[in-house]
Amino acid sequence: MNTQVIYTKIPTGLPNPSETFEIKKVAFDPKNVVVPDGHLLVKTLFLSVDPYMRARMRKPEVQSYFPAAQVGKSFMGGAVVEVIRSGDSKFKDGQVLVTFSPWEEYVVIPAVSPMGNIVTIPNPRESKVPLSYYLGVLGMPGLTAYIGLHKFCEPLTPGQTLYVSAAAGAVGQVVGQYAKALGLRVVGSAGSDDKVAFLKEMGFDEAFNYKKHPDFVSILKQTCPKGIDIYFENVGGKMLEAVFEVANDFCRIAVCGMISQYNRTENPEGIHNMFQIISKRIKLSGFIVSDHAAECGSKCIPTFAKFLAEGKMRYRETIAVGIENTPKAFVDMLEGKNFGKAIVKVADL
Amino acid sequence: MNTQVIYTKIPTGLPNPSETFEIKKVAFDPKNVVVPDGHLLVKTLFLSVDPYMRARMRKPEVQSYFPAAQVGKSFMGGAVVEVIRSGDSKFKDGQVLVTFSPWEEYVVIPAVSPMGNIVTIPNPRESKVPLSYYLGVLGMPGLTAYIGLHKFCEPLTPGQTLYVSAAAGAVGQVVGQYAKALGLRVVGSAGSDDKVAFLKEMGFDEAFNYKKHPDFVSILKQTCPKGIDIYFENVGGKMLEAVFEVANDFCRIAVCGMISQYNRTENPEGIHNMFQIISKRIKLSGFIVSDHAAECGSKCIPTFAKFLAEGKMRYRETIAVGIENTPKAFVDMLEGKNFGKAIVKVADL
Repeated sequence: MNTQVIYTKIPTGLPNPSETFEIKKVAFDPKNVVVPDGHLLVKTLFLSVDPYMRARMRKPEVQSYFPAAQVGKSFMGGAVVEVIRSGDSKFKDGQVLVTFSPWEEYVVIPAVSPMGNIVTIPNPRESKVPLSYYLGVLGMPGLTAYIGLHKFCEPLTPGQTLYVSAAAGAVGQVVGQYAKALGLRVVGSAGSDDKVAFLKEMGFDEAFNYKKHPDFVSILKQTCPKGIDIYFENVGGKMLEAVFEVANDFCRIAVCGMISQYNRTENPEGIHNMFQIISKRIKLSGFIVSDHAAECGSKCIPTFAKFLAEGKMRYRETIAVGIENTPKAFVDMLEGKNFGKAIVKVADL
Repeated sequence: MNTQVIYTKIPTGLPNPSETFEIKKVAFDPKNVVVPDGHLLVKTLFLSVDPYMRARMRKPEVQSYFPAAQVGKSFMGGAVVEVIRSGDSKFKDGQVLVTFSPWEEYVVIPAVSPMGNIVTIPNPRESKVPLSYYLGVLGMPGLTAYIGLHKFCEPLTPGQTLYVSAAAGAVGQVVGQYAKALGLRVVGSAGSDDKVAFLKEMGFDEAFNYKKHPDFVSILKQTCPKGIDIYFENVGGKMLEAVFEVANDFCRIAVCGMISQYNRTENPEGIHNMFQIISKRIKLSGFIVSDHAAECGSKCIPTFAKFLAEGKMRYRETIAVGIENTPKAFVDMLEGKNFGKAIVKVADL
């Protein structure tokens, strides 16, 4: 049998695991699968669930940088997969790849990713780090942190204050630890006391639980007494408004995500203090990792791999087990129930 | 007698000429004035009234890039003045200067401007352009256009679409004509049919009266069929929301002003589609001319002076006559009743 996670219905507000998705089991024998030229039969090891996926759950006519997901088909996302049978000369059976792939246990995929390069994991069977890290600190989220800081927040002046929201998330924990390594003063926010404790363990100078401090301006002034020089924006809405109030002149804001708004498609929060952009000469730069992956990947991944090997960086994950739990892992992540990068483990290598 | 325009009361909403200001006449004989060392007795020739002045009319404890105006004193702003008696070796009697000066017919000012350099107008009595242009295309507004484009909107790719709001205003008309000279396709909006006709005369590819087209998204799609690559932001609010919808990927937005919001201090409009900043990788840069004046002035002013001399650029002004009309000229400008740069002529040279 092969288990597939079918995307069945465009959600309104927060998706519901059993309404937005259907778990489908189909008869399957890998031996009978025909692999066309230029394709690969792969076995899924890990699936990534990420905030941006919510933005794909929309009517196809609504334009965005990322095509709308297709109702009635398996949902797709970043995955670590093992090549069971290669129909392409660039890949060999037994290789472990990071690519963009349907949420299925076994699947035939093109040997060219629609979302950029397919990464081959070196020596996967002797890896010193969990292979799931290639969906996190050594994958798209790590690269997002690196690109956001180096392409959109420079100068990264030691001693200046960087604030990152969703700081215990897939991207935020890398942003904070890397910025600390560069000598910045780092402040993070997250949605539970456990996450706040984790951020402090990771070396964050200050961290706060935004659910306990609904007056964001006040808690930001308290934790960033010298103001905010760099904001790594993951949440949007009222937090962005508050940052505008506490920002210093010439504040750089890398706009990476706005998770607080993704389930408010019908009534997004308004930002009312836009004049601060002029008054404080703020620069806001929206960015998408895939625009810069080719340029930055070769610098970023070795840097973080070295930090991990030397114990200078840690990476926290929440791992659900079993492909049938992917919908719940996805919705839990949207609700902030995950701690660190949200991953689904589908199979062992 | 010397006429002064005193700022009497912090306004709520739109200022009222006779409530926000008081015209005061005081006995005055220039011969009796003692000019201290490092100061100048000047006669005001032209006063500038500008949108940013509204933002100075606030409680002093509200921080902004520009100090709050002081209630009970003459209001201050950009001015063209003639030196009547110099108490400073750098300036001579009879010179004509552009500086920051109180709204008074005659006044003693420091020979150092609190707002950057004092500019000496060369050969003012043989000037080929009106001296008021030094408060417009050859002054702060012209420099604002130049800096906004070159520092925050590059690349200025010929053929790309630039949209400028408040396009018939002090800054907008320079932005549009200069962008045309650089080869961009230029679209402008303004608040009357006369202004729209003027923009078309100036060579704008398209122009529209925003008061007749309350559906900003629709009119922007119509006038910018290839989308917006560069937006020179002067108005804020719903227009900025609409631009986010019509922007192309990698759109650059120079955030220069938000005049639609200046009289809404208690209830600014919210921007609800901030996610477009990510989706379209938009860059928004707030800026203030004085941060860059020293760097850019020496390139900008000769460029525009040459364009004017060659007839490649025109500059429209609305000139009120008499210092006692300054409050009305200011409020008219905030309401968009001016056409081009709003100026008050106080005296002949």
